[in-house]
Amino acid sequence: MDFRDVVATKRDGREISSDQLRAFVLGYARGEVPDYLAAAFLMAAYLNGLTPTETAELTRAMVDSGRTLPLAGVSLPKVDKHSTGGVSDGVTLVFAPLAASFGMAVAKLSGRGLGHTGGTLDKLESIPGFRVDLSPEELEHQVEKVGCAVAGQSKDLVPADGALYALRDATATVASVPLIAASVMSKKLAIGTDLILLDVKAGSGAFMKTPEAASQLAGACVELARYWGRAARAAVTDMSQPLGSAIGNALEVAESVRLLRGEEKGRLRELSVAFAAEALVALRGTDRDDARSMVAEALDSGDAADTFAAMVEAQGGDPRVVDDPWAVLPRASVKREVPSPDGYLKEVDAESLGRAAAALGAGRMKKGDAIDPAVGIEFFPKVGDKLEDGQPMALIHARDEGAAATVEDQVRRSITISPKPVEAPHLLYGWHWTAEGEAARSDRGRGAAG
Amino acid sequence: MDFRDVVATKRDGREISSDQLRAFVLGYARGEVPDYLAAAFLMAAYLNGLTPTETAELTRAMVDSGRTLPLAGVSLPKVDKHSTGGVSDGVTLVFAPLAASFGMAVAKLSGRGLGHTGGTLDKLESIPGFRVDLSPEELEHQVEKVGCAVAGQSKDLVPADGALYALRDATATVASVPLIAASVMSKKLAIGTDLILLDVKAGSGAFMKTPEAASQLAGACVELARYWGRAARAAVTDMSQPLGSAIGNALEVAESVRLLRGEEKGRLRELSVAFAAEALVALRGTDRDDARSMVAEALDSGDAADTFAAMVEAQGGDPRVVDDPWAVLPRASVKREVPSPDGYLKEVDAESLGRAAAALGAGRMKKGDAIDPAVGIEFFPKVGDKLEDGQPMALIHARDEGAAATVEDQVRRSITISPKPVEAPHLLYGWHWTAEGEAARSDRGRGAAG
Repeated sequence: MDFRDVVATKRDGREISSDQLRAFVLGYARGEVPDYLAAAFLMAAYLNGLTPTETAELTRAMVDSGRTLPLAGVSLPKVDKHSTGGVSDGVTLVFAPLAASFGMAVAKLSGRGLGHTGGTLDKLESIPGFRVDLSPEELEHQVEKVGCAVAGQSKDLVPADGALYALRDATATVASVPLIAASVMSKKLAIGTDLILLDVKAGSGAFMKTPEAASQLAGACVELARYWGRAARAAVTDMSQPLGSAIGNALEVAESVRLLRGEEKGRLRELSVAFAAEALVALRGTDRDDARSMVAEALDSGDAADTFAAMVEAQGGDPRVVDDPWAVLPRASVKREVPSPDGYLKEVDAESLGRAAAALGAGRMKKGDAIDPAVGIEFFPKVGDKLEDGQPMALIHARDEGAAATVEDQVRRSITISPKPVEAPHLLYGWHWTAEGEAARSDRGRGAAG
Repeated sequence: MDFRDVVATKRDGREISSDQLRAFVLGYARGEVPDYLAAAFLMAAYLNGLTPTETAELTRAMVDSGRTLPLAGVSLPKVDKHSTGGVSDGVTLVFAPLAASFGMAVAKLSGRGLGHTGGTLDKLESIPGFRVDLSPEELEHQVEKVGCAVAGQSKDLVPADGALYALRDATATVASVPLIAASVMSKKLAIGTDLILLDVKAGSGAFMKTPEAASQLAGACVELARYWGRAARAAVTDMSQPLGSAIGNALEVAESVRLLRGEEKGRLRELSVAFAAEALVALRGTDRDDARSMVAEALDSGDAADTFAAMVEAQGGDPRVVDDPWAVLPRASVKREVPSPDGYLKEVDAESLGRAAAALGAGRMKKGDAIDPAVGIEFFPKVGDKLEDGQPMALIHARDEGAAATVEDQVRRSITISPKPVEAPHLLYGWHWTAEGEAARSDRGRGAAG
């Protein structure tokens, strides 16, 4: 087989046969297809698109490039939840124990932060002693016992994805809906779960800048799950501003704890509730309104917090983080308040805030960079809020005064103020579903947030 | 500078700045831009095209990637002639001594055959003793003394072209008009000549299958010459059948000798005359009809043959090849006639005949393969000819009977017969010119063949 034929087919806008595409992807994973030929394929796919069948076969070949995680030893109904990445997106930290507190199993394989978006592993590792390098057996055992676990993805799960993503990053071919969908879904389909929940972010802090673009990606992901006979629900949610108020690793764990203890309201709680309720609707057939009440109650009663403590303890971390976060979590030595201007908060450049936190040391600009778990930014107001001149708008947690001063200016420039009232943006634009009897694409604003 | 920006610009269909494109190409030639990134660029350029400015800057950077050959020591008016490659295309062998016999200097750097197309170097090397590895000094000296020389291209002339062509071949990005034009013209612009003549082939034996596609390429090449202030004339000519009757190295030299001695008419002579006359028109201001008569006379008088003998001798070959070709050239041991069917010759698959000759050993399937100078195919009729059942249509020159038998079937399958009369195709569709006062694109059939 001449692998150039695969590239020529896509170059000419024709559909690649399943066998050929599979051989190409597996050949690339084995090092038989050179990087330059894969790069030409990626650019042709970027510009000419991939058909649904091609996207599905690409995804299957990616899954088959490595080992899978069937989770056969877990008896509970299994749910996976994945976010395409945002700023102050602590939903996974809340969702995992919350869903587990209802007897659903959450075996979450997570990644590390890159650029302006944080990573769940980095956040959890700010808890002293917390281990994310669980073996498949340890992961299954913990999930069966505690209900949830969060671990790093092993290198032999979907190795083709790591290789293809690195090549896309190096060749300006990242921003392609079918390539992103294949990347996201290959990692979800490789794990044996009963339900895949996706949070596809849209807005200034997300990769997809508009709800329409995010909806396209959500649709492509759900289409892939349907092709493989797997149940999936994908929400398009707002990332036009940070979801919670904390940006930074220990700060986000502390915020999650406040949410899990029912002490904090707001958009991060709302979205965590929406996802946990959706899992109950899909896996248990619970009525959606009932599900939402049950989930809210699990936060307010402390049940979810207890499950989080059990997970932290099982993974070697200090469970007192649930009772008194700042007795356990590392704290930055310098705090600097950023005062508000006067007016209505019209826009927040969430990516800019994410980059500011990364510049403090909370994130990494390239893989392998060290991070500082203590530093970050708390940004309090939400779009539509009335700001009072001189009131604290943000709190910078920094290693030293110099770093804090540098970032302060960036925080100030991240917002736009209006003299007139501004409407708050949607939180959840809608859902794409695979389940029978449900629309593939709900109306904007419907779904769990409706 | 992030080289990915260059790729992203082309990916998005925008024009790359001259500085950025130049840095990218020179960076690639120096090994600083990796193959995979150049491959992504080539696919983006293939699919989104290159603007005239981008094509010109790409070409300039390619020229500047290596040394040039100014030919400052040659006092005569200098003309270069290049064909995009065809089957039985011996024009260069005839043109070089023919033009030189009129006091024009032809310093021709040629290549070797690949696939179904022959290479001028391979043909000349079938003359015992003929050397093509002339140094720049030897080349200039011979051109000044004899009027013409044909040598291999040195590796340090336009090294970026060799690297980019290999990458295009490996990534299914060869068939792009601006990329082909840049490749062709970089090698012509790197040599200091007063006139560049291009023969852009169209038809079953050419890379460009239609006159329209060939005309696009001819226009792009002439546009590049104009951009650099160089004079160029590009003809679109027919390659829907072999140009001459000989396909194979010694066979083509023998045919050239017959033409140079005025012993053979036909399309190969016509086209050689057209190019030599065009050089006289452009460089000397000769009236076109006068030029054609003068050139025809140089063939019929033996003047051109004498110049060819002088060139062969200067390059170490046996000049008796002009007096008695088969006393000097290697001959194949087996000859097999292929009889004609009955009817009018409607179509010839010239590429198939070229591949059949290559299969006998006359060509190479990949770079570095050895070739056999003696073998090949003589294919006598032209499209429109009335064939008589059983008359010899072709003569196969092979190493052994087995090889001849295998190829015979391929020769038979290379033609289509019609019971009704068929019109002969155009030989020369038209010219693209850079010269002032002349149309950039002449009408079909006009120009030297009109």
